[in-house]
Amino acid sequence: MNMYLNFGKVRPHLTTRSLNPENQETPIHFISSVQPVPNALFFRRNHFPYPILTPESFTLKISGSVNSALLFNYTDFFKLPTRSTRVLIECSGNKRAYFEEKVFGEQWESGAMSEGVWKGVPLKTLLEYSGIQAGVSEVVFRGRDAGIKSSQYNHFERSLPIAKALQPDVMIAYEYNGKPLSHKHGFPFRLIVPGWYGMASVKWLNEIILIKDKFTGPFQTEDYVYYYKNGTSEQVTTNHVNSTIQQPQDKQLVKSGTHKIKGIAWTGSGVVSKVEISFDNGDSWEQVKLEITPKEYQTVPWSYPIKFHFGSEYHISVRATDSEGNTQPAEAIWNKKGYGYNAAMKISVSAE
Amino acid sequence: MNMYLNFGKVRPHLTTRSLNPENQETPIHFISSVQPVPNALFFRRNHFPYPILTPESFTLKISGSVNSALLFNYTDFFKLPTRSTRVLIECSGNKRAYFEEKVFGEQWESGAMSEGVWKGVPLKTLLEYSGIQAGVSEVVFRGRDAGIKSSQYNHFERSLPIAKALQPDVMIAYEYNGKPLSHKHGFPFRLIVPGWYGMASVKWLNEIILIKDKFTGPFQTEDYVYYYKNGTSEQVTTNHVNSTIQQPQDKQLVKSGTHKIKGIAWTGSGVVSKVEISFDNGDSWEQVKLEITPKEYQTVPWSYPIKFHFGSEYHISVRATDSEGNTQPAEAIWNKKGYGYNAAMKISVSAE
Repeated sequence: MNMYLNFGKVRPHLTTRSLNPENQETPIHFISSVQPVPNALFFRRNHFPYPILTPESFTLKISGSVNSALLFNYTDFFKLPTRSTRVLIECSGNKRAYFEEKVFGEQWESGAMSEGVWKGVPLKTLLEYSGIQAGVSEVVFRGRDAGIKSSQYNHFERSLPIAKALQPDVMIAYEYNGKPLSHKHGFPFRLIVPGWYGMASVKWLNEIILIKDKFTGPFQTEDYVYYYKNGTSEQVTTNHVNSTIQQPQDKQLVKSGTHKIKGIAWTGSGVVSKVEISFDNGDSWEQVKLEITPKEYQTVPWSYPIKFHFGSEYHISVRATDSEGNTQPAEAIWNKKGYGYNAAMKISVSAE
Repeated sequence: MNMYLNFGKVRPHLTTRSLNPENQETPIHFISSVQPVPNALFFRRNHFPYPILTPESFTLKISGSVNSALLFNYTDFFKLPTRSTRVLIECSGNKRAYFEEKVFGEQWESGAMSEGVWKGVPLKTLLEYSGIQAGVSEVVFRGRDAGIKSSQYNHFERSLPIAKALQPDVMIAYEYNGKPLSHKHGFPFRLIVPGWYGMASVKWLNEIILIKDKFTGPFQTEDYVYYYKNGTSEQVTTNHVNSTIQQPQDKQLVKSGTHKIKGIAWTGSGVVSKVEISFDNGDSWEQVKLEITPKEYQTVPWSYPIKFHFGSEYHISVRATDSEGNTQPAEAIWNKKGYGYNAAMKISVSAE
């Protein structure tokens, strides 16, 4: 009867938000926050259909205000100095579905984020080869994905201020978790900007253009801008300090007895310095245990042991604070396009 | 370069609600309502871990108040008279997440339902072989899945009134979409009770017991009961008339231009007689086109052509009515365990 005993594993899946273009969420409640997210469960966020591979896909051009324009080939990358870093990528729309005054756009819950090990060449290294002309203010990154945006044909293009571009952590990645990038995640080249929301980490990177003025593409000046209620606006850049309760889940019927409340915390500013839990809607807070020493650009797993009593309801809030003194607020700052949600997470469970 | 052109299909996945036991939702917004749901995307709803297959799994025992107790083998089923019917199975917790006063339990959205073609032996046929003693009031169905429930070791067991059990549509299915049932969906035998919520369609069916009194197992008298606010309660039985908008999705940014609003409607009472759409929060309604002639136990695909204008917001409500005169209400009837949600579905989209 052995042939009958393999029933297929019980495993989590991506949560489908849209298929055209493909937008799918990591099943954040069901992944280990200690292991890197497997490529198959890495969240997918696209503005356009997947680009077709052509011979030009395997080159990376550096041009604009440089001393010498350069064209790198895919194989050149294996000869250049590399670094490997474990880095979280979080979509700036992560948790958009939680805004109480609802916002149009992909209704991401907590899983528009994934973390793993990226290997690549520091952008700084490449820019040192090409040279940087005096007066360069921004570096523009062009992906091969393209389509109609704001009534015009546009590539996905984003810029970084030159100072940010020269930070040694910013890299052109060509491997994820020890394997070449998958096509869906930017093969062959993806910019990785640790500590910034995911829109900065341009996939299918094909051209790098140094400029002396301001880049005004639609993904820089229309999308990925916080439009606040008071009429002001601001570029989306650094990940806000944030945390997610992975288990239990909101409105779960838990078994009475001993449990661990567990989750993750992260920030784009320094490192997570503490994570606190409240059982009285934020009147009093208690620190939870961080499972690892917090590191820059990485989520910190945390846990809190608890005994749930039969018939009781529990209201659980969690908030993180980072080394720059930022703490998750009780309410997120509403903005028209729904970016950067980071209110303290609140759930309730009932024990049976 | 052809080797590079196969990038992997863009496809929808089950939405993971829990893994232990496994509860996953059909990606209802992304399936064709004309094709049967493929087995891999059929929603999974479990109370216990998957049962282990043993030689006894391949038998089906009929006992209790019968003239002769019978033991059928799996292979017997291939010799018995069969029928094939396309039948929707909808979990009674489908749409629980939409109750405005939140309810504890799996937070199903609209995908705790799937439809396909079941082949099996009418239960009536088997009961005619065993004979039914005078005074039989209920038929109890025992699944092989078991565990602690209400502080006791219990199998998943449910009963049907004898009159319902003898309806010719109630069958012991052993195939889904032309293949043996998969282990996760009840292999080798699953009761199918068309028109009733899914808890009645017992998986891994192993024993059928005819009784002359009332069955009081916990899945009959504690769970799957509507506990209303006024203190009254009622068994969960027939699927409420219901509908779901598949496309567009709530809070979607749609491209301006011509679209089809599309979705499905269904009922456990007769057939769907009309589906209506409103753009003014239910003040006025207009009938949409049903894509097929409504059939009992099946979802009806419907569609409505529309032109979305740049910069406009649309508030879209949809409600179905069935041949017994039931119409989806504006608000669902709240009940403590969150069953039978069937309020008219409301979404809003913004055109860009």
